[in-house]
Amino acid sequence: MPLSKNKIKYIHSLEQKKIRKEENSFLGEGPKLVGDLLGHFPCRYLAATTEWLSKHPSVVANEIVEVSAEELSRASLLKTPQQVLAIFEQSNPKIEIETTKKSLSLALDDIQDPGNLGTIIRLADWFGIEQIFCSLGTVDVYNPKTIQATMGAIARVKVHYTSLPDLIALLKDIPVYGTFLDGENIYQKPLAESGIIIMGNEGNGISKEVENLINHRLYIPNYPQERETSESLNVAIATAVVCGEFRRQMVAPSQLL
Amino acid sequence: MPLSKNKIKYIHSLEQKKIRKEENSFLGEGPKLVGDLLGHFPCRYLAATTEWLSKHPSVVANEIVEVSAEELSRASLLKTPQQVLAIFEQSNPKIEIETTKKSLSLALDDIQDPGNLGTIIRLADWFGIEQIFCSLGTVDVYNPKTIQATMGAIARVKVHYTSLPDLIALLKDIPVYGTFLDGENIYQKPLAESGIIIMGNEGNGISKEVENLINHRLYIPNYPQERETSESLNVAIATAVVCGEFRRQMVAPSQLL
Repeated sequence: MPLSKNKIKYIHSLEQKKIRKEENSFLGEGPKLVGDLLGHFPCRYLAATTEWLSKHPSVVANEIVEVSAEELSRASLLKTPQQVLAIFEQSNPKIEIETTKKSLSLALDDIQDPGNLGTIIRLADWFGIEQIFCSLGTVDVYNPKTIQATMGAIARVKVHYTSLPDLIALLKDIPVYGTFLDGENIYQKPLAESGIIIMGNEGNGISKEVENLINHRLYIPNYPQERETSESLNVAIATAVVCGEFRRQMVAPSQLL
Repeated sequence: MPLSKNKIKYIHSLEQKKIRKEENSFLGEGPKLVGDLLGHFPCRYLAATTEWLSKHPSVVANEIVEVSAEELSRASLLKTPQQVLAIFEQSNPKIEIETTKKSLSLALDDIQDPGNLGTIIRLADWFGIEQIFCSLGTVDVYNPKTIQATMGAIARVKVHYTSLPDLIALLKDIPVYGTFLDGENIYQKPLAESGIIIMGNEGNGISKEVENLINHRLYIPNYPQERETSESLNVAIATAVVCGEFRRQMVAPSQLL
């Protein structure tokens, strides 16, 4: 059964947040990503090549369509379409305050770039961070660029949208970390095993309202440290260095500078 | 003087590697980036708003054009054009073998994504890594997406294109590092103060030919470490964690796990 023009149009419409929200749907492409998403999100529609389908005989979806590579490439949003494309149902996980209090989480204060958000979800998965709280102004996690950049980690990391000040108020006295140019050297500071790490917007950093709620100001030292710098790190890069150091200390808490 | 259609067409043509090479030129946009590039690369052409020009009365370029924000947006490759756009001359820095032997450098084995390359240049600048060696199959550093992602770090970090096996042969006995799933825990391994860190292609990792030249295999531990994982980190993220740990150890060499 070939892909109808209407179906292709519908698939492309999922680039728009408004349509994704109305439909409660999102798009994923490629064997690794779709493989991870299946089983974690209900699959409403799946289009794949004969080759992919023959390797996945027991795949479950509301509608499964066998397509040629050429048809797939007309539907795909990727530069290099890859065997399979699927539409999934969005999930809206509940925030569990008690679990959150006992674990290390990330909070993103108005991250704008879909690739940055996806990359952060992927690295959170690597470092065993199971929850990410996004401010209401953060880019939509179901943006196809974000989903692709997670490389499947979105199936394992819970992403919530909420007011960060309200969340922090609910969590009460847990450690709240953020990075600032005037913060303490992260390598010299004993880091807690649970708490919330706030990362700010690409251009403006952490908003004033959220900054006021941070009780541990960290700094990733540049090198050589004597060098004055007006530079900064990309937010996903800074997140990686911070999460890596939290996890390093958790395995070797006494080894600080 | 308004921007001619031909000039706009010329600016857009610099998205193509072939044209950039023929013209020995590249494009940069925005006050922060253009500010960093001016003085480091000869500027052939600069178009800016009245506001930007009034703040930079002594700017030097072969041709300077005052334009309206609307004209600038027709020439710009950015979603949100920003006051100034300029065309610079490419530089082709020489490789200094003796300097390289004494410093910590990065080598990129066929990185394909322009944003990843730019992000790696930016973080190299933060961590005081002054040279990056790109394999001949690595994406062009003068790609506009790469240049924008460096956020100006391209003015401070030297980027060379060369055969990595030839380079390593010239450097003789220096430590050559790479990350692998079967490598040693980077936090348990004493890292040298000079050497070369190789990062591989997004999909395929480090090529066999280059892998054979690596004498220190590293691993960034995931968390919890007992968890089996088929996952990986984005190459720019992995580069950040590796460079951060080299620099942390350089300041506190005895503090290993």
